[in-house]
Amino acid sequence: METRPPLPMPGHSGAFKKHSKAPSDGRSLDREISPSGSMLVTEEECAPAVPEASMAQEPRQTDFQLVRVKSTWSRIKKGEALSNSEDEITHSEAKIGECISEGGISWIIEAPIYFCYKVVETYNILEPSNTTLLWGHITDPQQIELATASKRKLRRFIVIDEVVDKLYGSKVRQYFEENNVQYKILALPTTEETKSMDLVLNILHEVQNFSLDRRTEPIIAIGGGVCLDIVGLAASLYRRRTPYIRVPTTLLSYVDASVGAKNGVNFLQCKNKLGGYTPPVASFLDRSFIQSIPRRHISNGLGEILKMALMKHKGLFDLLKNHGKHLLDTKFQSCNGFADHRDAALQTTRIAIETMLEELAPNLWEDDLDRLVDFGHLISPELEMRVLPSLMHGEAVNIDMAFMTYVAHARGLLDAQEKEQILQCMRGLELPVWHSGCSWALIQRALQERLKHSGGQPRMPLPTGLGVADIFNDTSEETLERAYKLWVKDCQTVLEEELPAQGDDPAPQLHCLPL
Amino acid sequence: METRPPLPMPGHSGAFKKHSKAPSDGRSLDREISPSGSMLVTEEECAPAVPEASMAQEPRQTDFQLVRVKSTWSRIKKGEALSNSEDEITHSEAKIGECISEGGISWIIEAPIYFCYKVVETYNILEPSNTTLLWGHITDPQQIELATASKRKLRRFIVIDEVVDKLYGSKVRQYFEENNVQYKILALPTTEETKSMDLVLNILHEVQNFSLDRRTEPIIAIGGGVCLDIVGLAASLYRRRTPYIRVPTTLLSYVDASVGAKNGVNFLQCKNKLGGYTPPVASFLDRSFIQSIPRRHISNGLGEILKMALMKHKGLFDLLKNHGKHLLDTKFQSCNGFADHRDAALQTTRIAIETMLEELAPNLWEDDLDRLVDFGHLISPELEMRVLPSLMHGEAVNIDMAFMTYVAHARGLLDAQEKEQILQCMRGLELPVWHSGCSWALIQRALQERLKHSGGQPRMPLPTGLGVADIFNDTSEETLERAYKLWVKDCQTVLEEELPAQGDDPAPQLHCLPL
Repeated sequence: METRPPLPMPGHSGAFKKHSKAPSDGRSLDREISPSGSMLVTEEECAPAVPEASMAQEPRQTDFQLVRVKSTWSRIKKGEALSNSEDEITHSEAKIGECISEGGISWIIEAPIYFCYKVVETYNILEPSNTTLLWGHITDPQQIELATASKRKLRRFIVIDEVVDKLYGSKVRQYFEENNVQYKILALPTTEETKSMDLVLNILHEVQNFSLDRRTEPIIAIGGGVCLDIVGLAASLYRRRTPYIRVPTTLLSYVDASVGAKNGVNFLQCKNKLGGYTPPVASFLDRSFIQSIPRRHISNGLGEILKMALMKHKGLFDLLKNHGKHLLDTKFQSCNGFADHRDAALQTTRIAIETMLEELAPNLWEDDLDRLVDFGHLISPELEMRVLPSLMHGEAVNIDMAFMTYVAHARGLLDAQEKEQILQCMRGLELPVWHSGCSWALIQRALQERLKHSGGQPRMPLPTGLGVADIFNDTSEETLERAYKLWVKDCQTVLEEELPAQGDDPAPQLHCLPL
Repeated sequence: METRPPLPMPGHSGAFKKHSKAPSDGRSLDREISPSGSMLVTEEECAPAVPEASMAQEPRQTDFQLVRVKSTWSRIKKGEALSNSEDEITHSEAKIGECISEGGISWIIEAPIYFCYKVVETYNILEPSNTTLLWGHITDPQQIELATASKRKLRRFIVIDEVVDKLYGSKVRQYFEENNVQYKILALPTTEETKSMDLVLNILHEVQNFSLDRRTEPIIAIGGGVCLDIVGLAASLYRRRTPYIRVPTTLLSYVDASVGAKNGVNFLQCKNKLGGYTPPVASFLDRSFIQSIPRRHISNGLGEILKMALMKHKGLFDLLKNHGKHLLDTKFQSCNGFADHRDAALQTTRIAIETMLEELAPNLWEDDLDRLVDFGHLISPELEMRVLPSLMHGEAVNIDMAFMTYVAHARGLLDAQEKEQILQCMRGLELPVWHSGCSWALIQRALQERLKHSGGQPRMPLPTGLGVADIFNDTSEETLERAYKLWVKDCQTVLEEELPAQGDDPAPQLHCLPL
């Protein structure tokens, strides 16, 4: 399978056009033996098993569209009309190209699948009167009416991270009990160490025991990114896809895992080596969970938010610059008595979600390799791998972004003042801007590795101002080295003391690059 | 995640339209804080955390399209133009709907993914001079030129069924050696008993050891349906998707597994409980493999071909009726000396592929539950489950189709002569048309089970003539019972002697329904 880059090709038929050299009269055998006709092949009428040389010289391609009359789909040539026009005709967006050549027939199938999912802000999601967790994934009001009117007892299967379960488990149970739901809660340790196919199969075993009805009973995942990733993979495998719901409980998963389609598990010590791109039916975002996470984890999430700010939103950058400390102090909670910071938390998360969605929705399966969201992700995979467990993901991303800010400056894309503003903002968010493990050799190796995964081009996102960016393929070695030297000179000493203590919040030893 | 039914909705925005009650002026915070503006929120300017009651009374929805300028995607309201028109603008087919209500903002994301794959007839695929297995999956001639011009040694990872390996393994090895390919062949037992996630992980382990480059090295699967299903799942999981190639070696997989997107493994004694819908990058069809399979397996494949004939192709039905015995005798091989039957084999397989593609391409992820390809698959899952291992899949399907032919007759859709022609054709293909395990109680249970998986409607495909069909939801119990009685009366005694011997070619004990 190949998925097409998500950009629309002329007339949707990029792959076909290249081959259709002439208006084709390519006949295929189902037109010699008409589907509805009673004609039967005879020896004389038969096409030869291998088309004759005269036919085979130039491959001929015919492009077909698909139309349905009653229950039957048929191919028609592009532009052709159906003769029996009294029946209602349905057109498909799928296409079949048929190419006849010496070796036989080749068919090229192009078929779109439309993914549709919701990302929903909510407050007090575990309040029994809040029905979001039960019905929030349904878009069609008629369907909600039907579902709520049904006499059948509602059933839900919930996977919850065991740490989250300790904090919120009793509220979750109370929620489902008060709403008269037949439920099963599976509390699991969801960490990088346990993020494996074993845990996915463990979940699937329990889902099967629950006799889950995949048409009406979405699986609910409550936890951080690892939990959401594992459950997403389990759900996408169960009966070829079962709807699932994401309820992120950390800042990083609130702004990152919640909006996209990716899921995955580690395999053979390699990060996210197995997985897919099946989006949840809905993500429900409740900021109140964030009050339970440690301050360092808030900074970790702020790293990914800052990425979006630097790439495309000056307003978001200003929010982080001016309210960063308060966001850390209040853990993104809205105190009703203080309208200013309450709103900084709301606005920061909201803009982070919106900017992420803008970049992810047109590129849901990551077919387009030119991605602004890769900012901070060129050097950091190699760095994370090397210095684990001393850096969290958002911290490694920030070190990468800090270096890249110097690259942008060295290229003349940012002036000294802009560069300084960015670095100052990072420090305000309590994120490291330098790490001793991020050597010149590591940077070179990481950029070499990058080429392998990005089609031979570096595709380097760089800020071109505050909140604007572009993607570059022509950064010279000399520029990189100049940037590196200035970065080390400016940041090295200042930051060693600011680095989080080694061994704090250890992450597992993963030896391969993330996807 | 929800995938939309594959039929085009008006303006592609079915899910959105229902909510856009008024031309929306819904403002979101990223427009209060403009992305590029330097404006910073103040206490007065902030929107409240929970929108005010006056705003919240009626949820307002705004539909956004996505446009890219340089490297940055932005949302614009439908119909809105971008101000800076000197830059090239790219439009995405993805959409974001934004709904503001009391609880906060909901975003509805609709994003299409375009699957593109090839189904290619070829002859002598293992002849070293035939480059199909190396390059046949590439559609773009420029890409082939680039790939063949590269100095890097070609690398391929091949999974082959161990029975096929005994017969063709040395030819496969010779093929890759003569083409100077660095290859790894993994021969595995691929049967219903071994069709498990364990075998998938076994394959993935070896793929990882091979250091497969997923951008340029598609995994090749050579075998029957089980082998193609297992490898398809492994490939779809590896690094979130790795291209793979299907080379079917049985008649059933040639006309069935080769054309669609489905993959899967059994889980907890349940057939195909885990899997997905990732199509191969290409399927290569070489009829010569079919000469190695037992006669009963040819009949098994003919069952699925007959399904397509009865549903939508009179010409295919006539081919099977008139040439069925010869196709069985010659095992679908083209003897160059005998043009007639040579062509019957070619034409039968070709029309089977084309009719399958017509029905599968518009419904790749099976979102539309009205499917002609479900003919023969309403009763047979329950029957297969009950009488395993005595029936092969195509045999159980044929018993179902024979009963349904009587149902169509009882409804007045087929006259007695048409019904008789169909039954006669089935017998000619050496397929069972009745089974003692297919009781009236089993049929009732199976149709009840069907309702669960088809959205509460039976969606019963029935022939309405020879090679034409429709889908019915109004077959009465009385009609079914009348059809059953006549079916038993006509077929019971005739066929008991024709049934394949019990224990012949045993299939595993699987207790759940297939998907």
